[in-house]
Amino acid sequence: MNSPNRMLQAAKVLQESEKVLIFTHQRPDGDALGSSFGLKYFLENTGKTAVVFIPGAIPHRHTKLFAGFISEITQEEFNTFDTFVSVDCANPDRLGKPELLSIDELRQKRYINIDHHKGNSMESGFFNLVSGETASCSELLVKIFCAAKIEIPEICATPLLTGMMTDTGCFRFSNTSADTMRNAAILLERGAELEKIVNALFFSKPLNQVRFENELMRDHLKFAAEGRIAYAFIPPELAKKYDFNIKEDEGLIDLLREIDGVVIAMLLYTGPGGIKISMRSKDSAFPVGPVARFFNGGGHELAAGATFDGSAGEAEIAVVDKLAQLFE
Amino acid sequence: MNSPNRMLQAAKVLQESEKVLIFTHQRPDGDALGSSFGLKYFLENTGKTAVVFIPGAIPHRHTKLFAGFISEITQEEFNTFDTFVSVDCANPDRLGKPELLSIDELRQKRYINIDHHKGNSMESGFFNLVSGETASCSELLVKIFCAAKIEIPEICATPLLTGMMTDTGCFRFSNTSADTMRNAAILLERGAELEKIVNALFFSKPLNQVRFENELMRDHLKFAAEGRIAYAFIPPELAKKYDFNIKEDEGLIDLLREIDGVVIAMLLYTGPGGIKISMRSKDSAFPVGPVARFFNGGGHELAAGATFDGSAGEAEIAVVDKLAQLFE
Repeated sequence: MNSPNRMLQAAKVLQESEKVLIFTHQRPDGDALGSSFGLKYFLENTGKTAVVFIPGAIPHRHTKLFAGFISEITQEEFNTFDTFVSVDCANPDRLGKPELLSIDELRQKRYINIDHHKGNSMESGFFNLVSGETASCSELLVKIFCAAKIEIPEICATPLLTGMMTDTGCFRFSNTSADTMRNAAILLERGAELEKIVNALFFSKPLNQVRFENELMRDHLKFAAEGRIAYAFIPPELAKKYDFNIKEDEGLIDLLREIDGVVIAMLLYTGPGGIKISMRSKDSAFPVGPVARFFNGGGHELAAGATFDGSAGEAEIAVVDKLAQLFE
Repeated sequence: MNSPNRMLQAAKVLQESEKVLIFTHQRPDGDALGSSFGLKYFLENTGKTAVVFIPGAIPHRHTKLFAGFISEITQEEFNTFDTFVSVDCANPDRLGKPELLSIDELRQKRYINIDHHKGNSMESGFFNLVSGETASCSELLVKIFCAAKIEIPEICATPLLTGMMTDTGCFRFSNTSADTMRNAAILLERGAELEKIVNALFFSKPLNQVRFENELMRDHLKFAAEGRIAYAFIPPELAKKYDFNIKEDEGLIDLLREIDGVVIAMLLYTGPGGIKISMRSKDSAFPVGPVARFFNGGGHELAAGATFDGSAGEAEIAVVDKLAQLFE
């Protein structure tokens, strides 16, 4: 699937588009936004029209990096697009799409599915490029451009590096390969603004979040499996007290993960549809992917999540119990 | 100074050594240790004898990565070495050396000074390689090995990548160049154990430190210059309460730096010789290097420190005042 030839074909079908509508997953993170805007700017740079569709607002920290997308579209406007691309979206349920568009309809269009999640189930009838071994969808775009010997436009470099740095946890996660570093080097050479990315992603924590995290860690941190599991349920009233939007945060779980001796970190919070469970593992010998899938969730082996249909207390007992079995 | 030819010469003088004693700066961080052990393993791999000298213990987190150094030496043992190398040490005052050795004596020996600090004043009479534009001393060693077309031994890869990741803040600081990423790629290819490094450096925070940080941020965080300066004095009794060794920590200041709107972060604490001042800037338009030098300290433009001869209150007033002038 992931041969240089396949990458070339991806570049070709992208370049043969004229007016492109770009989708990504709901609650977009740095890679979803980075690959959406990296692709948009690339297409615009080659004379195409490209529009990013994001339903709703984007996280505060990303507003410094990404601007210029639509959140609504009429049927008439929609009909003017000849090509539709989804980036970084693993399955139809997660797609941030206009209401008027059904997945079945999308699959019958000139729809290009570009993703790096193993088990991607978007299933375009036209073109799919799924590269489970690539650390981020943004890096996958870099690979596509390089395979096609396209010099990456300067305007694409910052969004794409943002995506790469998000999904590799700043080149710390086990998905970081020598190739990943070389692809990041290419983006730096093409003018990616590292200081801007880092200040937005890592050094822009609102003071209310600092206070919120402080109280969360002081009063709600729990351990299981002799300290190898650290977890916390975020009470809705605590988030409200500090005006903290849980959905916005990508780094909260690292507060638990960074503790010495902890192998698996988990956050639980009340979300739409049930109790949201977010899990991270520091050790590939204890993957959280299977646990997420057991609870009908998904993700990667070391970073996964699920939604639990029940109370927070029930979720905590059920998931901690399942995680603890990994250490038995 | 930093031509490929000069790098080659450095490789040559290192290879012409037989029995090498390696020094680095006091209170060694990941780059000091990474370059010391990277060099030691390289020399041993080519059949030489190499010993790392560190006066005292190394930080807890580094004990998982680095072992096997000496902290004492007799005159007799000392006399058996033909070559002396210092890595990552900018000036004689900071050198972690045996008491029996004076700087003047060192300068007259076959002493090789390898460093990446601008304004290095070690001044060997034999050989100096100072590359102020290289992000870490560990990366400088990679450059030396590459210039000499030496395949980096696998055993050197993990220490050297540890040093590179420490001094670039995980490839986030402005000293990170495309070359830096490519040199990191080389180390990953040579077998550097990323998961081991990351778990030791970034995911090994003792629980007592978590508690300590929590209380520090809750009770001692202050702001100046309309939120652009964040600072905290660490009361000795707070560190004592949580059995936290301030000297050990390299990441504490990031708690202040990561706050949105903060441009300069500063920590003050009581140390040997006065009040220790540690400063970081997020913006090259507001460098802290000159402020550190004003108070007879040193470091890099965006990461610098000094020791203040006076009370904590006096230090706070004087340094915050000087920093605030940057924003006037």
